[in-house]
Amino acid sequence: MNETIRIIGIDPGLRRTGWGIVEAQGNALRFVAAGTVRSNDKADLASRLCQIHDGLSAVVHGQMPQEAAVEQTFVNKDATATLKLGQARGVAMLVPALAGLRVAEYAPNAVKKAVIGVGHGDKKQIHMMVRVLMPKASFDTDDAADALAIAICHAHHRQSATGRLAAAAIAAAAL
Amino acid sequence: MNETIRIIGIDPGLRRTGWGIVEAQGNALRFVAAGTVRSNDKADLASRLCQIHDGLSAVVHGQMPQEAAVEQTFVNKDATATLKLGQARGVAMLVPALAGLRVAEYAPNAVKKAVIGVGHGDKKQIHMMVRVLMPKASFDTDDAADALAIAICHAHHRQSATGRLAAAAIAAAAL
Repeated sequence: MNETIRIIGIDPGLRRTGWGIVEAQGNALRFVAAGTVRSNDKADLASRLCQIHDGLSAVVHGQMPQEAAVEQTFVNKDATATLKLGQARGVAMLVPALAGLRVAEYAPNAVKKAVIGVGHGDKKQIHMMVRVLMPKASFDTDDAADALAIAICHAHHRQSATGRLAAAAIAAAAL
Repeated sequence: MNETIRIIGIDPGLRRTGWGIVEAQGNALRFVAAGTVRSNDKADLASRLCQIHDGLSAVVHGQMPQEAAVEQTFVNKDATATLKLGQARGVAMLVPALAGLRVAEYAPNAVKKAVIGVGHGDKKQIHMMVRVLMPKASFDTDDAADALAIAICHAHHRQSATGRLAAAAIAAAAL
């Protein structure tokens, strides 16, 4: 029950992809690292996707997370922006999957609920709560802070899923 | 001038990604191979992106193309469909880029113009002209035929670009 799990949260974007790594042991959370992978907006699209791939691969292979989580994308009305984000997101989900990690997806309001307790709230509240939950957390960009929030969300959800499984096992054993 | 260049055209999609390989020598085109990478629509998104990656990687490493081309995506009003396509397209462009290939992008009407001579026309006309231009071409899906059309478009464009460079060199030498 109280094994330590290392989780990477990823907030994908073509220009900046945030990543954050936390360790969860039961309900306890520990900040490990966070950062931002940037792509050169003067380069062609394929090269930028390579930069995202190479940057995230270095993080995954260096930090060795065991599970990954990405926020479900809010599709907006700007189709060109959605396509750009989609391309970055495809690469961001591919990298941990190629390393053999399961990649969970969470709706934005699930991330907010896990971090600030309710399904709505602004970026500032999220970032403040990330610091409250993990006082040692440091992040260079909003994207890295968002990535930490996604990792925290996954830690909560997998913990309650584990709790439910354990309860089901106890119930089954009692029959 | 008349070196042989092996080109891969890719028509990305989350469910089916078509690929087609042609060899261009001057104005001459030769069909090499074509096919379709499928992803399992029962699997989660990250696994499907891995399937696209693995399938296309096997083609790129097996067929050793030297240049790659992808059609510019027509962004439609269905944002969810655009996001799905974007994710597949990100992976489809990443694979040749990781292998060190430049990945050119062409607008749909440029592909049509290269294959059927005008910037409009339906799928059937494109597929018919692919067979006219390369009688030995065989393809298992419309996506593979579209990928061959994209490769043909790239062969035409790089040939005219090479022609312009050569003309510029001759003009410069004559000064």
